[in-house]
Amino acid sequence: MSKGLLIVVSAPSGCGKGTVLAEVLKRDNFYYSVSATTRPPRPEDVDGVTYHFLTREKFEELIASGGVLEYAEYCGNYYGTPKKAVEDKLSEGKDVILEIEVQGAMKIKELCPEAVFIFILPPSLETLRERLEKRGTETAEVINKRVAEAKGEIEKSYNYDYVIVNDDLSEAVSDFIKAVDAEKLTAKRNISLIDSILGK
Amino acid sequence: MSKGLLIVVSAPSGCGKGTVLAEVLKRDNFYYSVSATTRPPRPEDVDGVTYHFLTREKFEELIASGGVLEYAEYCGNYYGTPKKAVEDKLSEGKDVILEIEVQGAMKIKELCPEAVFIFILPPSLETLRERLEKRGTETAEVINKRVAEAKGEIEKSYNYDYVIVNDDLSEAVSDFIKAVDAEKLTAKRNISLIDSILGK
Repeated sequence: MSKGLLIVVSAPSGCGKGTVLAEVLKRDNFYYSVSATTRPPRPEDVDGVTYHFLTREKFEELIASGGVLEYAEYCGNYYGTPKKAVEDKLSEGKDVILEIEVQGAMKIKELCPEAVFIFILPPSLETLRERLEKRGTETAEVINKRVAEAKGEIEKSYNYDYVIVNDDLSEAVSDFIKAVDAEKLTAKRNISLIDSILGK
Repeated sequence: MSKGLLIVVSAPSGCGKGTVLAEVLKRDNFYYSVSATTRPPRPEDVDGVTYHFLTREKFEELIASGGVLEYAEYCGNYYGTPKKAVEDKLSEGKDVILEIEVQGAMKIKELCPEAVFIFILPPSLETLRERLEKRGTETAEVINKRVAEAKGEIEKSYNYDYVIVNDDLSEAVSDFIKAVDAEKLTAKRNISLIDSILGK
């Protein structure tokens, strides 16, 4: 059985990444990698679903033993990608999705150049602002900050393999799946197939 | 309107490339580039459909004026890709398919690095041999020669962007279209889209 694809997905807040991924994950062959964190669980959190909640001590043990693919510290809390589940699922032939912000994604790119990098774009910064405003949960100041952050993140999208505009949801989902499927048709991922046809 | 994609397709004889392309071309956005040649037309040939039939003089004029994208001489006859139709159709936003053998394809790769290269593979060399034998039109000696040639051509498939196995026709057609569609989602082909979102 051939190994699965490691798929790194980034998007600014408000691009509907969660909705796109929820649809994509309805397809059989995907596995969503749940991150680990030391931040305290919130009421809506489910351990092992939204995050793996670890103590600071456990997380540092994991780092020390090489058990995280990448990690970062934000606001005094660790966030990272547990390595074992990712490697196990890839070996089983599953396509593993890592939802990760741009800095983490670029770290993964250095560590796993064979991963495929997908960036979900808003149709425009204006649409992004409108979506954030519609949520009605944040002040104008926070929204301005988020749009500015989004701009900085989108600047990094040039370094991704694929960019998918989330304007129409079903189109974005279909584009995501096309990118994954086509990636599996690339010659560079089919060296052993060509070898076998040639009897090597 | 964005420019179309230049798609270079190669396959050894007996891989069903013609059948795959005939299906692919049923989709709207493709344009099949008809090659020019100086070989005399055969009864089944239609000028402008199977080839553009040119005199040696006309072909050499075309070469001299830079009117061919690439050309080669086989058995004393010129074969080449007229440049103007390709460029016109690309400007119209059409995806232009060049059906071309491996040497010609590699020349195009130097000239047009932005083209996408698709190689159609047989499921195995044995299947290829069987398909050639079933045609019943060639001697065992010719078939051996064709299989040996195919092997040499498949050796070049490592340098293509995508490899598509033509085992099941409808799957091969769908893979071809997925590769083309996904190629249009790559970040490197969407620089101006990202620029426009960023207001550059």
